[in-house]
Order: sequence, then C-alpha cells, then structure tokens
Amino acid sequence: MYGRYTQELGVYAKEEAARLRESGQRRSVSDRSRTLDLLEYDKGRCAKCRICTVRCQKFLISRVGEDWIFLILLGLLMALVSWVVDFCIAICLQAQKWMYGGLDSNVFLQYLAWVTYPVVLITFSAGFTQILAPQAVGSGIPEMKTILRGVVLKEYLTFKTFVAKVIGLTCALGSGMPLGKEGPFVHIASLCAALLSKFMSLFGGIYENESRNIEMLAAACAVGVGCCFAAPIGGVLFSIEVTSTFFAVRNYWRGFFAATFSAFIFRVLAVWNRDEETITALFKTRFRLDFPFDLQELPAFAVIGIASGFGGALFVYLNRLIVQFIRKQKAINRFLMKKRLLYPALVTLLVSTLTFPPGFGQFMAGKLTQKESLVTLLDNRTWAKQGIAEEFDYIGHSQAWKHPQVNVFVTLVLFIVMKFWMSALATTIPVPCGAFMPVFVIGAAFGRLVGESMAAWFPDGIHTDGTIYPIVPGGYAVVGAAALSGAVTHTVSTAVIVFELTGQISHILPVMIAVILANAVAQSLQPSLYDSIIRIKKLPYLPELGWGHHEKYNIRVEDIMVRDVRYITLNCCYRDLHNVLLTGHLKTLALVESAESMILLGSIERAQLQSLLSQQLGRPRRLQYIRERAAAEKKRLSVVSNPGSEDDSQRASQEVRFQISTEESSFSPTRPVPLKPLKPALKRSSVVERPTEIPTNAHDNSGITLKNLFCASPDTEGLEVREPCPRIHPIAEWEEKQLDEQVNFNNCKIDPAPFQLVERTSLHKTHTIFSLLGLDHAYVTSIGRLIGVVSLKELRKAIEGSVTVKGVKVRPPLASFRDSGTSSSENEATELHKLWDRHKSMSLPREHTPSESDEKSQ
Amino acid sequence: MYGRYTQELGVYAKEEAARLRESGQRRSVSDRSRTLDLLEYDKGRCAKCRICTVRCQKFLISRVGEDWIFLILLGLLMALVSWVVDFCIAICLQAQKWMYGGLDSNVFLQYLAWVTYPVVLITFSAGFTQILAPQAVGSGIPEMKTILRGVVLKEYLTFKTFVAKVIGLTCALGSGMPLGKEGPFVHIASLCAALLSKFMSLFGGIYENESRNIEMLAAACAVGVGCCFAAPIGGVLFSIEVTSTFFAVRNYWRGFFAATFSAFIFRVLAVWNRDEETITALFKTRFRLDFPFDLQELPAFAVIGIASGFGGALFVYLNRLIVQFIRKQKAINRFLMKKRLLYPALVTLLVSTLTFPPGFGQFMAGKLTQKESLVTLLDNRTWAKQGIAEEFDYIGHSQAWKHPQVNVFVTLVLFIVMKFWMSALATTIPVPCGAFMPVFVIGAAFGRLVGESMAAWFPDGIHTDGTIYPIVPGGYAVVGAAALSGAVTHTVSTAVIVFELTGQISHILPVMIAVILANAVAQSLQPSLYDSIIRIKKLPYLPELGWGHHEKYNIRVEDIMVRDVRYITLNCCYRDLHNVLLTGHLKTLALVESAESMILLGSIERAQLQSLLSQQLGRPRRLQYIRERAAAEKKRLSVVSNPGSEDDSQRASQEVRFQISTEESSFSPTRPVPLKPLKPALKRSSVVERPTEIPTNAHDNSGITLKNLFCASPDTEGLEVREPCPRIHPIAEWEEKQLDEQVNFNNCKIDPAPFQLVERTSLHKTHTIFSLLGLDHAYVTSIGRLIGVVSLKELRKAIEGSVTVKGVKVRPPLASFRDSGTSSSENEATELHKLWDRHKSMSLPREHTPSESDEKSQ
Repeated sequence: MYGRYTQELGVYAKEEAARLRESGQRRSVSDRSRTLDLLEYDKGRCAKCRICTVRCQKFLISRVGEDWIFLILLGLLMALVSWVVDFCIAICLQAQKWMYGGLDSNVFLQYLAWVTYPVVLITFSAGFTQILAPQAVGSGIPEMKTILRGVVLKEYLTFKTFVAKVIGLTCALGSGMPLGKEGPFVHIASLCAALLSKFMSLFGGIYENESRNIEMLAAACAVGVGCCFAAPIGGVLFSIEVTSTFFAVRNYWRGFFAATFSAFIFRVLAVWNRDEETITALFKTRFRLDFPFDLQELPAFAVIGIASGFGGALFVYLNRLIVQFIRKQKAINRFLMKKRLLYPALVTLLVSTLTFPPGFGQFMAGKLTQKESLVTLLDNRTWAKQGIAEEFDYIGHSQAWKHPQVNVFVTLVLFIVMKFWMSALATTIPVPCGAFMPVFVIGAAFGRLVGESMAAWFPDGIHTDGTIYPIVPGGYAVVGAAALSGAVTHTVSTAVIVFELTGQISHILPVMIAVILANAVAQSLQPSLYDSIIRIKKLPYLPELGWGHHEKYNIRVEDIMVRDVRYITLNCCYRDLHNVLLTGHLKTLALVESAESMILLGSIERAQLQSLLSQQLGRPRRLQYIRERAAAEKKRLSVVSNPGSEDDSQRASQEVRFQISTEESSFSPTRPVPLKPLKPALKRSSVVERPTEIPTNAHDNSGITLKNLFCASPDTEGLEVREPCPRIHPIAEWEEKQLDEQVNFNNCKIDPAPFQLVERTSLHKTHTIFSLLGLDHAYVTSIGRLIGVVSLKELRKAIEGSVTVKGVKVRPPLASFRDSGTSSSENEATELHKLWDRHKSMSLPREHTPSESDEKSQ
Repeated sequence: MYGRYTQELGVYAKEEAARLRESGQRRSVSDRSRTLDLLEYDKGRCAKCRICTVRCQKFLISRVGEDWIFLILLGLLMALVSWVVDFCIAICLQAQKWMYGGLDSNVFLQYLAWVTYPVVLITFSAGFTQILAPQAVGSGIPEMKTILRGVVLKEYLTFKTFVAKVIGLTCALGSGMPLGKEGPFVHIASLCAALLSKFMSLFGGIYENESRNIEMLAAACAVGVGCCFAAPIGGVLFSIEVTSTFFAVRNYWRGFFAATFSAFIFRVLAVWNRDEETITALFKTRFRLDFPFDLQELPAFAVIGIASGFGGALFVYLNRLIVQFIRKQKAINRFLMKKRLLYPALVTLLVSTLTFPPGFGQFMAGKLTQKESLVTLLDNRTWAKQGIAEEFDYIGHSQAWKHPQVNVFVTLVLFIVMKFWMSALATTIPVPCGAFMPVFVIGAAFGRLVGESMAAWFPDGIHTDGTIYPIVPGGYAVVGAAALSGAVTHTVSTAVIVFELTGQISHILPVMIAVILANAVAQSLQPSLYDSIIRIKKLPYLPELGWGHHEKYNIRVEDIMVRDVRYITLNCCYRDLHNVLLTGHLKTLALVESAESMILLGSIERAQLQSLLSQQLGRPRRLQYIRERAAAEKKRLSVVSNPGSEDDSQRASQEVRFQISTEESSFSPTRPVPLKPLKPALKRSSVVERPTEIPTNAHDNSGITLKNLFCASPDTEGLEVREPCPRIHPIAEWEEKQLDEQVNFNNCKIDPAPFQLVERTSLHKTHTIFSLLGLDHAYVTSIGRLIGVVSLKELRKAIEGSVTVKGVKVRPPLASFRDSGTSSSENEATELHKLWDRHKSMSLPREHTPSESDEKSQ
C-alpha cells in the first residue's frame, strides 16, 4: 500500500546509482581515449569531423533521459509502423484485386481467388499469433485499460507480442475482412513504449521508475490512436476515455505532444511518398461551409443518434453472444480447440463468400475495401438527386453502390445489415484486430441512408428564404459514423476523431448531439465493447459508477465490507501464523496489536509470512538442531561410556529420515523470497501474477510440517524409514516447540500504512478512492480498531447492484438487459450474503481451531 | 482525513431523510386535495387540463433529482446569461460608437465622449462589484481551481457574487477595454451550478452531497467556457486543463453534455434573433480546403509558436509586475486604498486616450472593438497583395487597418505592442474580467503579421508544381491566436477552441505544433496566468510537477518532512493538552498511543481538543465545584458552629471573583462546537476558513486558565478582588487538580485513519497522492510509529526547488527567472532549514515545558 516499506528499494536505488555512476565514468573515460586514438591514428581531414560526431553522440546520450526525446522517438517509431502497416495492407488488397480482376473469364476461378486469398491470410495470421504470442490476439484496449489500472498482465508488453501483433494485424487487415486497426494500434504503441523504455534504461536510471512508465503508457495509448487516424486530439481524448477512470492532466500534455508528432510524421510520409500534395485529413470531405445544415434537420440527426445508440448496444450484445455461444457448445468447442485454425478459416470463408462481387456482393458494394466504402459514403454529392436515385452518375468507386436492378436505398440497407453481423462475427476471430473501423463504416452507411432519404424527401432542402441549400447526405454519414462508433465504445471523443478524419468541423453540433444521444442510449443498455471483453476475459477491473445512479451516494462501506478479516497479532506464535496461512487466500494479511485491542498496525504480504515460517522450521535450523542433539547424545554416551550398535543405527536412521523428508519437500527453505521490484503506490501488485506461485507453496510448506508433526503419512516416508513411528518423536517435539515460539517480525517487510476507511465512507467515495489509487483492498477501521475489509470484489458487487441495502434493491433502471451476460455474479452475491448472515453480529473475527486447518491441509 | 468520523453525518442524513419523506407525504396529500378541490370547484372543461398539469408538475418534480435535468437547466441558464450579456455588451459598444460618430464635428467633444463613456462604465463596474461582492473581482478561474482542489473559499459561490459578477462583467466589457469574458464565465457558470444545486435541493436530498457538488462544479466550468465561445469540446478540455490536476473521466461526460447543450442554445438564440441564417461558428473563416498550407510553411508556424511562448511568459510576468509594483509603492497604495475607484478610472482614461481613433488610435486600428479586430484579422484575403501592402482594397472593418501614411505592417506592430501592455494593465483593474480574449486577439495580430510578411515574401506561394497556391495570412492568424493564448494559460486545448471558433480544422497540424512549442517555452519560463494569480492572491494551492523534471523522482518524503510533530497521547492529562494547544497552530493533532511507542492511532481536530479542555475547566464544573465547596464549608462551619464575618465575606468574595473571571472570558464553555457539515474525504476542510476563529479562542482559553492558576494579573482582576492573592488558592488548586486529570476522549471526534506515508515515499508519488485526494497534510509513519508530518507547505517548497537534498540543488533549469516573483518563499525555506537543523537528530518530538508555554501565553 501506501506505506509499503521500501528499505530494499532504497538500497537498490543507491546501488544502482553507484553502478551507473561508475559505468558512466568508465564510458566517458573510454570515449576520451577513443577520441585520442582517433586523433593519433587518423590525422587526415576526417578526424575533426569524427570527434565532433563522438561529442554529439555523447551529448545525445546524456540528453536521452529527457521525457520529450522519449516521446519524439515513440511518435516517430509509431508513425513509421503505422505507415508501413498501411502500405503493406494496401499492397495486399491490391494483390487480391489484381488476382480477382485477372481471372474475369471464369467466375469459379474468380470465386476461388476471392475466397482463398483472405482465408490463407487470416489462417496465417491466427496461426502465427497463436504460436508466437497468444497475448497479441484481439484489440488490446481492454488489456491496456487493466494495465493502466495498475494490474500487471504477464507477457503483454514483450517484444514477441510486438512482432506477433504487427505481423498478425497486417495479414488480418490485408485480407479485406471487416476488421479495424485502431485497438491493436493502442496495444502496439504501448508495446513500443515499454520496449523503448527498456532500451533507454540502458542509458539512464529514471526509466526504472514504474510510475513514470505508467505515465508513458498512457501517452502511448494516445499515440496509438493518433497515428492510426492522423487524429492527435481525438486520439488523446479517445485513449483517455477508453483506458482511464481518473486522468492526470500532466499526462494529457505528454499524449498531445507525442500524438501530434506521430500524426505529423505519419502524414508527412504520405506527402513524401507523393500520395498527397500536402498534409490534409485522411478522409477529406468538401461540404459547403456557408450553410452546413439547417436547424430543422436537427431532428433527423437526433434520430440517427438514438438509433445508433440501440445499434451500438446490439453490436456489443451480439459480439458477446457469439463468443458465449461458441464457448458453451462443448462439442463445437472441443472440435475447435483441436483445430484451432478452423474457426478463423470458416468465418473468413463465410464472410468472403457473401461479399463475392458477382454473387451476393453486388447488392452490398462487396467490391469495395473498407477505406473505399468510407470515402464513397462521405462523398459530398447526393446520390438520390431530385428524389430519383438513378439520376446521379456514379463515378469512380461510387459505381459499386449502383445496381441496375435495385435501388441505392436497398443496397445501403443490405450493406448495413450484412456488415453488422459480419463485423460482430469477424471480431471474434483470434487474430489481432479491432472493431472501431468496421463500426465506423457501418455508422457512416446508416447516416448516408438517412441522409439520402432526407434528400429524397426534401429535394430542394428545407431552408425556405432565398437561396436553395440542398441537403448534404455526406454530413449525415459523418454524424452516423461518429454516433455508432461512440455508442459501441461509450465515448464522446469519436466526435473529435471524425472532425480530424474529415478535416471539417462544420457539423459540430449535429455530431455532438448524435454522439451524446447514442451514448445515453447505449450506456443504459450495455457495457462498452471493451468492458464487455474485459468481462468475457475475466480481467480484474472495477466498473464505472453509471450516469445518474445517485442511489450510490447512499450505500456505505459498512454495508458491503467483509467482517471476517484474517489477521495476525504482534505477539502471535508461529502456530497461529501457520493456521492463518492455511485458511485464507488473501495476498496480504492485517497485523493488529492484539486480538483484544484489534489496533491495526499494518499489513504483511503472504509471501513474507511464508518465508518467516520457513525460516523458523527450515533446513538450516533443523540441521543445527540435529547436530546439537547428536552432540548432546554423544556427550551423554561418552559420559555413560556404553557405546551400542542400537544408538549408532538410530542416529544414522535419523539423519537418513531427515534427508528424505527435506528432499521430498518442494520448497527449499534457504531459497530467498523473490525480490520483486517494489511497486509504487499507484501500481498495485497484481491479482493475476501472484496466485500461481504462492498458495501451492503454502500448502507444500504446511503439508510437510504437519506430516513431520504427526508422522501419519507412511505412503511417502514409511518405505525408507526403518524405525517405527515413536522413534521420530524428538524432531516432532522440536517442531512443536518451534511452532509455539513467538514470531519475530524484525526481518519482515511490513506495510505500516495500509489504506484505511471508516465504516461510514460512502460507496461513491470508496469507488473514487479505489480508482484513484488503484487499490485492490482497504481495511475498515473504527478509531484504530480493525473491523472489516473491502476488496475490489465487494465493491464490484455493490456497484453492479447485486447488494441489497436496507431493503432497497439498488440497481440501475435498465440493467436487467445487462445482467443476462453476467450470470456468475449471482452466485458470488449469495455467497456474500451468507458471509454477512454468518458474521452479522460478530465484530471480531473468530479464532480458527487447529483441527479445522488440519482438515483442510489434508 | 479518510476516516473522518461521520457519526453526526449519519444522524443528520437520517433526520433529513425523515424530514423529506414527511414533507413529501404532506406535499402529495396537499396535491391530491388540490386536485379534488379543482374538480369540485371548476367542473368546466378546464378541470381535466388542470389536473393533467398538476400531474405533470408532480412528475417533473419527482424527476428533478436526475443529473441530466440539472445539466440541461444549467446549460440553458448559462446560454441565456451568455446571450444576454453579449447582447448588452453589443448595445453598450454601439452606443459608444453612435455617440462618437454623432459628434464628428468637434474633435474635443468626440474625445470627451470616447473617453468618458468607458471611464464611467468601468468605474461603475468597479464600484458596484466592490460594494456588492468583492469576491467577484477578476477572472474566477484561479478561485475555481482552488475550490475544485477541495478548499472552501467563503462567499465565492453566493447569489450576491453572481449578480455582481454578471452586471460588473457586462459593464466592464461594454466599455470596450481589452478585457475578456471567458474567465468570469467559468466563475458565473459555477455560481449558477451552486445556486441551482441549492434550489434543487428543495426537491430532493441528493443535492446535499458535497462530492456530487464538486462534480457539478467541474461540469459547470466546462459549460462556462463552452457557452462563451460556442465551443463545447474546447470548453470541456480547457476547463479540465485550467482547473484540475486529476480528472474523473465520468465528469467529462457531464461536461460534454452540458456544454454541448449550452453551446447549442447559445447559437440557436442567435439564429432566432436573425443574426445568423443557421448554426455556424462564432468567427467563421473561409480558407480553402484543398490546399490549406504547404509543408514548407511549417517553419514559419514553428516560429510563431516559439515567439508566442516567449510573449506569453512576458505577459504573465508583466501582469504580475504591475500588481506587485502597485502593492509595493506604499504611497500609491495608501492613496488608492482611500479612493478605490481612482485606479480603474485612471487606467481606463489612459487606455482609451491612446486608442482614440483620430489620435494615436489611427495607427493601431483603435476604432475597432475586440470582436471586429478578430474578424478582420482572421479574414482569408491577403492584405499585402503581390508584396505591396497598399494594393488591397480594404472593405468594411478592414478599413481601420489602412492608414494613408503608414504601412499595414507598422499598424500591426503598433497594435500588437500597444495592446500587449494595455491588456496586461487592464486585467489588473478590480472589475470582473478575464485575459483570454485580449491575448487571443494579440496572438491573432501577431500571426497575421507573420502571415502577411510571408505573403509579401512569397507572392505566389511556396508550392512549385502546377497550381499556384498563395499563402493565407488568415491561417497564420489562427495559429498565432491559439499559440499565444495557449502560452499564457499553459493549455493545449486552445487549439480545439480555435477550430470550434473558426469552424475550420484544416490547419490542425500547424496549430498543434505552434501551441505545443509555445507551451514548452512558456512553461519553462513562467507559471500560467492563473497560477500566477493564485500566488499573488496567496490561495492554498499545490504547484504542478513540471514537464520533464525527473529529479523529482529521487526526492523522498524523509527529505522534506517536519520531524517535530505535535502530538497527544492516549493517556495524557489535560495539562499536556493545554500545552500542546499553546505551542502550535496546526489544525489537527496526531493522537499516539504513548510517547514511548509513538503508535499513531488517529488525529483530532484542534477545535475538538479545545472543547474538551473547556468542558473540563468550564463554567458548569466550576460552579458545581464552588457549590460543593460552599456546602462543605457550610457543613464544616455548622459543625464547628462558629459563624464569623470573615468567612462570610470570604465566600461572597469568592463568588464575586468567580463571576468576574468567567464573564471576562470570551468563550462560554457551554457553547457547542459549531457543527460544521462534515466534509467528504475529497473535500478537505479549508486552510482559509479556520484560522480566524480558532487560534484566538485558544489563546483566550489558556490565558484565563493561567491567570486563574497563578493569579498574577492584577490589572484585570485585582480591582474587584478584595482578598490578597493567597486567598484564591482554593480555586487555583481545583484547577491544578483538574489539569492533572487524565483526558477522557470518549466524546471526542477522532479521525481514526489519517493519511499516512512512509519515509521512503518519493516526492512524485506524494504529489500525486496529495493532488488526487486533496490532502493538506499526511503523517509519516514507520511500522505504525509516527515519525514526521508533511503538509502542503513542505511539498510546495520541495517542488518549487528551494529544498536542497544531499547537496544537489534541485530546481528546474530555467526557474531562476521564475523566482524573482516569489521572494517570500525564501524566508520560509530558511525557516524550514532551521527546523531541520534543530531536529535533525531528534526522532521524537521533545516535551514542551510549561514555563515555555506560559511565556508565550502572556
């Protein structure tokens, strides 16, 4: 917690500083000698230049610790990555088109080419990712949200994952499936930042600081979105909205700086590559400036917003439904688990069959890539001229929307419906992919549909006095895109992203209104796509306090806390320690003054206690005891001067037995407790990384001790031990005695200031504090006395509304639809209630009898 | 702290709930009876309508507790206020123009009219504000920043202040002085929110919740900026940047919603008023979309950014210099203090004399109002056509920039220089005013100057292949405006504000680059204007951790903490309490278990201790004692049966003496400690509101006791006391005895979980925690033992770099320029050093001898 006792850190920092200073000196010495060498050997005209270069290098290395250099490097790197990925994707897509176009003599061959190409790419992407780094699968935003909350997810920020994500993403998007680039780019940027941090820590010490790294990760998320859409402002805001609960304004600065630089380089590369004449928006629109929209069109924009809200919620629901369906169907699941690459291949086959242009694809502009669709949808010309859809001469890519038999409205509706479920399905494929861009395109199509309808309805525009201002369906498309993507991700910054993407801000009010309405509807129906994935993946998270759920202000900590706290007292003996370790799985334990006073002194990590226990009963002390005992025996024998064969054999057997019992144990008492770098306050030690290593350790530990104690396990020891049971008593007695000794906490890291709340703290405040500080539990005290503990679990329960307080069922009004997805939470809730009933009247935790713990240990 | 013991709050909430329930029932009953009445009396066709209306009303009232209704009302109200204020300002400015224009026959009369009008308005504004609410003076953003940090500033959110601010602002801006509307609008919106909260708390209980109110205030700040510029997104971001250190993303939502609604209504009002055809930007530009700028123009934009950075820092410095100059010159100060309205009048006279159009004003477009200047500066035509400034036909307001004798470049330079110091001077006038808009206009002029120079330099544009794209100086003006205002306020969101103001986002990259460079320069030279005002006004604040000051990661709490903590022990006697209260002025005191163990149990507020002490030595107990004593005396006398005149007189004199001594005391022991509503954790009780009431009380309190104790103050008591000193001994003895009794903490509010840090917590983390939680002090503990305390003061000192740690002077590289303004901090720093030296080796605070405290009390 706050007060994690960081003696080690201090020592470590000092040592590190000394090491760095030394290596710095060495480096500068070697530099100087190198320059001298150069001067001597190479007296030509180049020497001075070289010295200059070396000096510049030195200067650069000394400045390399600065934040802004890091951010510039990050921006540059990400811009390059983004541009290269885009370039490769474009090549892939062109290759497909070329293949498809070249085979226009035979429809079947054409179909084969159209279908095989994406299937191969997606299968490769899935396989490659699976083999190299399965962590690279999916969007990455949910994981980054969890990491920024302070949880350490293993292997999520490694070089392997970086490679897997970049290559996997390029292949996945190159296939032409309705997948997005933006979520993975957030992850890639974070990976870049983490790797760059590691790399730059070679030059200076400050990159070791973890709170600094978290700040850099937050900036990296902004860079990811920023260089993906060339939208620095929208990128910063979007990344804040999807990854943070509380945001440090100083990071905002960093994000802006890096994202702007990144977006700049990204666009400059396009100019240098002669794709563009100068730096402009990615999907530039050319709507008229003088009269962008009429006031009377606002209801139509509001309708787009509300419909998008429902649509967004439906998308999230559909996506989750597909995942859950596949998980539940055990037969399917087993089959798919065996053939991991079959599912992606099947889905790709289905999607690409349906979009085959000569087939069904002709009714839904299947020929167009995602980017081309978006460009045509945002076009500022009206397709349905004068109410007749056919009059407009579709040029360029817009041709795809025209069909000789069917109306453009039908094409649009089919496009929306088909792409909707295809996108929801495609995002469940285990490749690196996001859902933002597909949703954005669907939203644009929906907006275009409404816009074209409005244009058909009011051929001369609505405005009555003077000039005729026809309706601009492209503006509706912009509004729809922002609204639907806002609804799916629960963000309002999509509004800013569309302004930056289109390079026009004239539709600001319609966009804002639609986005806000879409958010209001979607937020009351479903969690955001990212929260939904967090739930599916069961990542440790804390839900937001909803919009307007002011009942939350009336719940207090005493209503939700767990009153049965595991604790240890200052003057406890090792036996108590042992019992406490057996009965719970919390990773920290409260230390109180005594069971009577219950004054909270601090908290101790489980691992610390285990090492205390193992020190007390460990091998060195046993050896010592045996040696002492043997010496005493010898003495006694020599005094009695009656050497017998029996005693000798006894001693030998004892030694043998001892060796067996310790060799068999899986823990070596001399093994030092792994010295984790101490985490800063805002970076709590994870829920995820610990449980695997420690509980097993605890059980082994206790198991051995107890076996030795009661000598009741002949199946493991009896074979080698030649003496009968009673003969072992001396060592058992010794252990008994050891267990009864008082614990010496002197060499133990104690967190002297664990986070405390009082029982009347409101849920709202508790949530704020937990989010702000990234806590995972807090003790509840009353004038220094420990009376309870609240952890993330209880808090989550309370916020999700499954806790009944004072007879009132506290839940958001529209949450019933939401609950369908979280069936597991109810069991936990009843468990919580049981806990309550059991301990309602008990303010002090009960003492655990040894017999109980023994039972559990067997 | 966190664990402030909120028993009272719970009781209060319950009572309040009961009251509300009751009144609700009463209301519904009365409603029902009213509808019945209506039915009976008014059997006509209206009756049903009325019932319907009543029902609607009831429904509305029941829904009125919702967040979104509050936000809509707030947005609506602020849009109306903004529009009305703008309307009045426009009328005022028109009136001045009309007067000035009507008197064109006589230059002297013209001058009189030109000068008198603003002087009268500004003087009225200053006087009105001074009389009604002096808190309304100035921008309001620094105060809001402080309030959102959790400090309660008295009288800043009252109706009086609202009236004073709105009327004062209208008059001030109506005068045509270079003043802004935006800062005051942040304050006005917060006032609106606070008043609306109060008003709506009549309908429901949740408006009582203070953490909710803080959230609403944050949203209100966004609304203030949003409805001032019709810039919802920029408003939200700007308000976040200038008021918050850590921002809850859920508030972002609220801000967006309210600001969008407000901006929408604000612009709709303009459409309804026939000012505009449809909703568009406030200062619409019409730059070409296809080629907004060339890549090779970017260095020019960067130059604007860097120059703006220096300019912004200079502006802040100049502004502070003027304030400090006026404060220091005691002669001026005395004079101005007497004639409070003279200073505004003089400044206005000077400024308006210089802008007089036929006079010097002709060289600096003095005729134009602020708004007109901005419109002309953002014009998309080039003034310096083909390199010759005179060729362009200036139409409309642009005429003002043309002068027959001097070049347009000279006019622009004069405009920039004159307006620069005028704005810095004008913003020191004690009227409600901001500095954003004047700075924005100066920035636009500077940008225009650079743009026109570029246009003169490259008459055919820089782009070489194909089409000629001439340079657009208006785009430079946009960049300059964003950069300078960003530099003065230390924000990057001015970029977004200019996009929303101009309705064009095509210059996004130049704007972002310039703003970031301007910020980088300005932040390393000076604090932001708002922080500068915070320092001048000495508001309780915490400076930001600067950009890239990574030395901060290496300072630890033990380097900055105060080791001499005032504390009380659990088993202390009242004398100790008394001594501790005398020797310090901290508003909370640590409670430890004993002086040996130093285990921190909690903290107690000073006021609580004072009430404990006064209860022990208070009037009722004295009376009781005297009564008992008298009874005992009587008994003794009756037993001895020797009634003498001496005893009678003694008793009488005792009673007299007692009455005198208590009447003289300024505190009445029976007075209850004022029951302040308990503040939530994130809303710390203020540093500002307390000191006035308590320390005096403490001194009175102790003064009396000690006087009674030693009976050494004949000047106050001796006159009425007829007996010599020794005769008073009985009561003195009683007091002595009382003081030696152990303190009973049972009825005392103890905060059981004050915030704790360990000595190795880094400064960086400490700053984060203090900002996040709005702390003003934290105890430093080592395994439960109290070893020090850190307060805002120490933290501020450490961040501002006046603390030397381990021989390294820790300060930002360019801070020397900064320090010139904060001369007072050095004294404090040396004081701190003294404290350190004194207690360097002492880990436990020393015991204060009574004699020392006596000295102080005399």
